[in-house]
Amino acid sequence: MPRKILLDCDPGHDDAVAMLLAHGSPDIELVAVTTVAGNQTIEKVTRNALAVARILGITGVPFAQGAGRPLVRQVEVAPDIHGESGLDGPVLPEPELELDPRGAVRLIIDTVMSHEPGEITLVPTGALTNIALAARLEPRIVERVRQVVLMGGGVHEGNWSATAEFNILIDPEAAHIVFSEHWPLTMVGLDATHQALATAEVAARIAAVGTAPARFVGELLDFFGHAYKDAQGFDFPPVHDPCAVAYVIDPTVLEVRKAPLTVELTGTHTLGMTVADLRAPAPAECTTSVALGLDAVKFWDLVVDALERIGDPA
Amino acid sequence: MPRKILLDCDPGHDDAVAMLLAHGSPDIELVAVTTVAGNQTIEKVTRNALAVARILGITGVPFAQGAGRPLVRQVEVAPDIHGESGLDGPVLPEPELELDPRGAVRLIIDTVMSHEPGEITLVPTGALTNIALAARLEPRIVERVRQVVLMGGGVHEGNWSATAEFNILIDPEAAHIVFSEHWPLTMVGLDATHQALATAEVAARIAAVGTAPARFVGELLDFFGHAYKDAQGFDFPPVHDPCAVAYVIDPTVLEVRKAPLTVELTGTHTLGMTVADLRAPAPAECTTSVALGLDAVKFWDLVVDALERIGDPA
Amino acid sequence: MPRKILLDCDPGHDDAVAMLLAHGSPDIELVAVTTVAGNQTIEKVTRNALAVARILGITGVPFAQGAGRPLVRQVEVAPDIHGESGLDGPVLPEPELELDPRGAVRLIIDTVMSHEPGEITLVPTGALTNIALAARLEPRIVERVRQVVLMGGGVHEGNWSATAEFNILIDPEAAHIVFSEHWPLTMVGLDATHQALATAEVAARIAAVGTAPARFVGELLDFFGHAYKDAQGFDFPPVHDPCAVAYVIDPTVLEVRKAPLTVELTGTHTLGMTVADLRAPAPAECTTSVALGLDAVKFWDLVVDALERIGDPA
Amino acid sequence: MPRKILLDCDPGHDDAVAMLLAHGSPDIELVAVTTVAGNQTIEKVTRNALAVARILGITGVPFAQGAGRPLVRQVEVAPDIHGESGLDGPVLPEPELELDPRGAVRLIIDTVMSHEPGEITLVPTGALTNIALAARLEPRIVERVRQVVLMGGGVHEGNWSATAEFNILIDPEAAHIVFSEHWPLTMVGLDATHQALATAEVAARIAAVGTAPARFVGELLDFFGHAYKDAQGFDFPPVHDPCAVAYVIDPTVLEVRKAPLTVELTGTHTLGMTVADLRAPAPAECTTSVALGLDAVKFWDLVVDALERIGDPA
Repeated sequence: MPRKILLDCDPGHDDAVAMLLAHGSPDIELVAVTTVAGNQTIEKVTRNALAVARILGITGVPFAQGAGRPLVRQVEVAPDIHGESGLDGPVLPEPELELDPRGAVRLIIDTVMSHEPGEITLVPTGALTNIALAARLEPRIVERVRQVVLMGGGVHEGNWSATAEFNILIDPEAAHIVFSEHWPLTMVGLDATHQALATAEVAARIAAVGTAPARFVGELLDFFGHAYKDAQGFDFPPVHDPCAVAYVIDPTVLEVRKAPLTVELTGTHTLGMTVADLRAPAPAECTTSVALGLDAVKFWDLVVDALERIGDPA
Repeated sequence: MPRKILLDCDPGHDDAVAMLLAHGSPDIELVAVTTVAGNQTIEKVTRNALAVARILGITGVPFAQGAGRPLVRQVEVAPDIHGESGLDGPVLPEPELELDPRGAVRLIIDTVMSHEPGEITLVPTGALTNIALAARLEPRIVERVRQVVLMGGGVHEGNWSATAEFNILIDPEAAHIVFSEHWPLTMVGLDATHQALATAEVAARIAAVGTAPARFVGELLDFFGHAYKDAQGFDFPPVHDPCAVAYVIDPTVLEVRKAPLTVELTGTHTLGMTVADLRAPAPAECTTSVALGLDAVKFWDLVVDALERIGDPA
Repeated sequence: MPRKILLDCDPGHDDAVAMLLAHGSPDIELVAVTTVAGNQTIEKVTRNALAVARILGITGVPFAQGAGRPLVRQVEVAPDIHGESGLDGPVLPEPELELDPRGAVRLIIDTVMSHEPGEITLVPTGALTNIALAARLEPRIVERVRQVVLMGGGVHEGNWSATAEFNILIDPEAAHIVFSEHWPLTMVGLDATHQALATAEVAARIAAVGTAPARFVGELLDFFGHAYKDAQGFDFPPVHDPCAVAYVIDPTVLEVRKAPLTVELTGTHTLGMTVADLRAPAPAECTTSVALGLDAVKFWDLVVDALERIGDPA
Repeated sequence: MPRKILLDCDPGHDDAVAMLLAHGSPDIELVAVTTVAGNQTIEKVTRNALAVARILGITGVPFAQGAGRPLVRQVEVAPDIHGESGLDGPVLPEPELELDPRGAVRLIIDTVMSHEPGEITLVPTGALTNIALAARLEPRIVERVRQVVLMGGGVHEGNWSATAEFNILIDPEAAHIVFSEHWPLTMVGLDATHQALATAEVAARIAAVGTAPARFVGELLDFFGHAYKDAQGFDFPPVHDPCAVAYVIDPTVLEVRKAPLTVELTGTHTLGMTVADLRAPAPAECTTSVALGLDAVKFWDLVVDALERIGDPA
């Protein structure tokens, strides 16, 4: 039976690939998509999410707009990586879906509470603002979700600072809230996602699919590659967000270790760092795990397979 | 025309007096009451709010339960000041009102959005968790409220630390959110409320009212006085929370100064301190004000007058 | 018998007045003068100290140059208040004294260790860098000094930020070290020194002395008054540093209260704040006191008297 | 020509091996040894340093005692790793050398200033308190030392917290001072030293030397191994401190990368973390380098060779 996931995202090039993987995989049932400010403003990422849904042929799934800013700090976006639109590169179609009027936080709560305990997996691939607000507004969701599998953070790597990753750094208090709740949580951070490189070979495999969605992904990765080259010196762009979805499909795609995880909130040089204590085996009560590596072959197989299954939506 | 206020509180002895003042004053229309964890757990303060409503004869006003814990930090309560029940002293009746199922945050949002812009004044007298969540969940409330008049903080005085006051210290991130929004905000802190002492003369005036609510207030102040004597060495207890309500009734009851206000989030000895920059006149765009003194005579006149107007509810 | 003091300063207009008071008072024996970067660079304040010594006729007292920068943080000077020279206003003579080759920290240690226990009072009127270094380099001085009477900090007032005073804020770690040692320490901060205003009447009294040093002080206060008017809006300049010397001469010149004192090292808005816990009487083991008020009449009497005693040095 | 080093240490088992390596290597001239509180109190580590000198036959080298506590924070020692004496395991002889009366900080300054520029390499293997004090007391040493090669810190590993190493964590402000000065500095941290394991094979090689010093080292490593097993779960103890000395002898013993380095002073979970920015090549003006790996074979060859050269001192 496929895993039911709610995807909370800020598309974003790699968020779009995460949507693709969630929609195309036979092992995932995408039950809702919510948006959060991050890679670009909330209006832009929401519009992008709806445009990607049209391209991929996602229908019958509620989409809702969420937080336009972090909990405590000022909003910060990433045009150097995702362009002015948040999804620069391809030409985007006009959205067709209507937004759910409840908004993201309410939709998260309703989705979790209307399903059986242990049924819904939350997959946040942006700042954790919506998830944090939902947990504070309706604490009962914490017991009820199956697990949280998030893209964010990094134990030995940073990108937005020497020690911190963008999704966590832009809303560290929200991350702290989400990391501190007692749900099973797996952090899929830069230690793993910096291995999810869209190499020339990967690009060729995607191009070979030959569909409109594949061309769209190709154009995304082309822009993303140039942006990552210019901004961070990467030869090929790391496609972070689908790694979290891939882990829900197949846990063996990641090397994961149970470890206490905390988010640094007061450091001068370490604000937003995700601190994993790897000095000893995790205590029994620990509910957090961290991804330390990726099986890149298996990962890209999942993505290409999903793309093939999606085909050319009408 | 009376001012419409939403009271967000954690009764709490002085919260009960704030309810009394809001209910009894002809210049206030109490449109909703919401609760938040603080003086005691959320279950206890909610029960207390309902019990006080019954004693005072408050009907036709929605009551809703709110946040059971601060945004980011662990919950902390104040049994030394308010007892195990949060309202030790009098015997409390069973509540009669039903709680609003929407919960505090939704009730705050709905109340503000269903009234005209500039109609609703928010009067928080506990931790600012609910108000912060409401502002993040529905940012449009910020433009729509008339003002926020809150009890909390202190410029030159602290009680829960040398520099910080309880309501702010237990949820400093929520306070930071509320203080940083661009609504008109007046902080009624310890600089003013430490002058709202329930002296023997005040107690005598209240006793002279001779009603059941007056006896209830007398019992509250009796316990509160002993608690404050034991815990903080006060000769008479400072009755903080109604000072904020009193300011809505009559701004001249407080000496108020416009000044930039921020909440310290990282200090070792100053966490939760409300920092007012009093070195120069506030800039024109400043929307925050701080109370630096109280006209105690005028204040207690308002309280006694409200008590007399309430009389003996059926 | 006069009190032996070592003056550690950064002249600086008010430091010059502190030198004057220490030199002219019959109740003080000035045993050494050391300098520290602060109001201006170490080279400038050292030159100023020597120039002031010449003007006042100070001879036979060792002068030594100290720290050119704070312990941990970058150097910060105050040209807005003291001008480019650190002592703008009067024309300064060429120094005549030679600097002690041992340097300030060694001179502080040697001075304290070569006198009897309880003989030397340290009077720092600048950043506490030298004193902190001396305490770490030779911990035995802590038991040996009579007391530390310093100008710096403020409980309810700040000048370099809303909550912090210049001398403490520019080297908060040094202040923390000095405040944490177990010597008797009296903090003479802005709560007292903002009452040491050089009013028109004060200026007239000083002018009436009619000596060269008095003219020098008059020119200093004239520049200082304009600088304080422009930079901080004061009608008359607060002459901070001699308040500490005055307290050694006559403790009744200040209203002093024993209280636990700590320096905030991590606050975002409160870095360098001197936190006094005034909520309860100080515990018996407390060795720190804080000045909360000044007898301005008595203070200026001491200054004018010292100026008269100095007369016109040859 | 051998490199002249000043060893600033807190013996400590691995400090003793560092002394051995410095004394026995033909490529090192040990010009002074200074001590600092850390692994144990200053009295204990100083006594240990003198005892080790006697065992190894070190003569004609000044030894001086330094700081008994960190700059800003309270003293913390490591009996779990080094025992109550700081050098538990072997029986220690009575010291024969006399301590230099100038003390460590003065000895550091005098040593650097009395040699040619570029002649002295500082090798701190404990907290950086003495070095920081020397740099503040006599800033000219910064230009004059050849380089600082220190054992401490870790980029991807911690031992005293999840993110920080003992030497840095116990005096992070001193570390910040030393890391921020513009001398060439190489940090030899846990990323390298956790590979300097005294395996059974290493122990056998040392035993085979067959001298009194070799037996002494064997007893040290035996205790150290049990302590590390119990306290941190290591199968074999990492012998940190001689790695810094080894790098002075032969830079190829470490894999070193130039990178900006800072010490975190305000983090809740990252206090004392040494933050290296490895995201991009270091800028040209960068003067700090970090060791990321160790050639363990080459390292132990150096140690055993030094031990053989020392032989059996008279």
